[in-house]
Amino acid sequence: MDETLQIELVALAHKLADAARIETLRYFRGGGLQTSSKLTDGFDPVTVADRAAEQAMRQLIEAERPEDGILGEELGNKASTSGLTWVLDPIDGTRGYISGTPTWGTLIGLHDGKSVVMGLVDQPYIGERFIGGLGQAHFSGPHGTGILQTSAVNELQQATIFTTFPEVGTASDAKGFQDLSGQCQLARYGMDCYAYALLAIGQIDLVVEAGLATYDIQGPLGVVEAAGGVVTNWQGGPADQGGQVIAAANSELHAKALKVLADYA
Amino acid sequence: MDETLQIELVALAHKLADAARIETLRYFRGGGLQTSSKLTDGFDPVTVADRAAEQAMRQLIEAERPEDGILGEELGNKASTSGLTWVLDPIDGTRGYISGTPTWGTLIGLHDGKSVVMGLVDQPYIGERFIGGLGQAHFSGPHGTGILQTSAVNELQQATIFTTFPEVGTASDAKGFQDLSGQCQLARYGMDCYAYALLAIGQIDLVVEAGLATYDIQGPLGVVEAAGGVVTNWQGGPADQGGQVIAAANSELHAKALKVLADYA
Repeated sequence: MDETLQIELVALAHKLADAARIETLRYFRGGGLQTSSKLTDGFDPVTVADRAAEQAMRQLIEAERPEDGILGEELGNKASTSGLTWVLDPIDGTRGYISGTPTWGTLIGLHDGKSVVMGLVDQPYIGERFIGGLGQAHFSGPHGTGILQTSAVNELQQATIFTTFPEVGTASDAKGFQDLSGQCQLARYGMDCYAYALLAIGQIDLVVEAGLATYDIQGPLGVVEAAGGVVTNWQGGPADQGGQVIAAANSELHAKALKVLADYA
Repeated sequence: MDETLQIELVALAHKLADAARIETLRYFRGGGLQTSSKLTDGFDPVTVADRAAEQAMRQLIEAERPEDGILGEELGNKASTSGLTWVLDPIDGTRGYISGTPTWGTLIGLHDGKSVVMGLVDQPYIGERFIGGLGQAHFSGPHGTGILQTSAVNELQQATIFTTFPEVGTASDAKGFQDLSGQCQLARYGMDCYAYALLAIGQIDLVVEAGLATYDIQGPLGVVEAAGGVVTNWQGGPADQGGQVIAAANSELHAKALKVLADYA
């Protein structure tokens, strides 16, 4: 991809995240938040903010790059004629969002039909943004900017592992996580997509999840890979379609964790 | 307590939190972080930042109010001759701190020998501070300031409940939490002391923990009570000495949750 196009795409990604921030913060911790249930048997709130943020991003893409595809969590699929598709999750971690936590995020992935070429994770309340791919591997936040670089921890017993819910996914998924996390130094929960950002800045070493959708993983995947990490499914194959996902700080740690998860893949 | 003294104490609490912020942020996500283990059989890191932050706060108290007592997590107990004691946890959520999360905090409680008269919870990375008692019940953060006010949710099945670890405390503690959280709408983990702040701003409805120390709870207790919440132990008695703690948005919800926890108290 030529550099002019790269610059254009990176600039658009920032514009999308900026536009989403306005909408997500408008309703965050506010009195006007409406939630409804997407799942009949669970608790998966869809907020007005979620839809407004996705709509704002879609309008920008359609105005600036009408031939690009769009795959959004809330408002569906628009086919690509350019070969590039923007994969959008306006609010990843809606449970965290409605609980007021600062660990939900806006996820933006850019897919070229083969793989994710750029990812962005934005945490609007803190004002923190992580971007990787197309020549980018950096973050900005309330205390400045920095380079993304995963950790060198390559032994499970020294590793810190995160997942969002203790239940992880199915009962077998949970067993796989427990088996792996029991061999790690520290296991923590509840960070939503922010866990991938912590992995990308070298603060933690593993993120293991299951039951992910395409839009849940493509933004984080681009960020973690640009930081030097390895992201696959539990079989060791591509993770860009979601499902069971493992993100590791480096290939050695990834191989060791994958060996444990193989029984549950 | 006369108003001049109240103003003096509130001003000192802010100075303490400001001083702690400098030390905790100096080492947060930095390369110079040293950790050691306080427990031989567990993972409870003590950081240089923890000690530096507590030292900074103690020096201010000793300079400005030498007759006040100090009870700090890291550097022990200094007896009070004024009747007032500052209860300090420089970094609550050290596991979160060393993982880079934005949900650890500095906790400051002020105890008059009978009960907590003021509490403060500070999240330095976000730049958010919650203070309650001595005429205070407000917060400040990156998007402005506001009043602390707990939610009116008074049914368990509408409540959002938080705890830090799924294990909670002992096996019986965990069973109590599971029994209660199974009757709530949503259970979430991993927020450390930040969960009490979310309770105080009306975003969540219950925080249930066990195995707490005095310094873990006095800061949050002051904040939650000033916001209209109820904080007790699982027997319904005073929570200022830690142990099994339940913090609820209001007395109705507290009573319903306490009934479930009674079997495990």
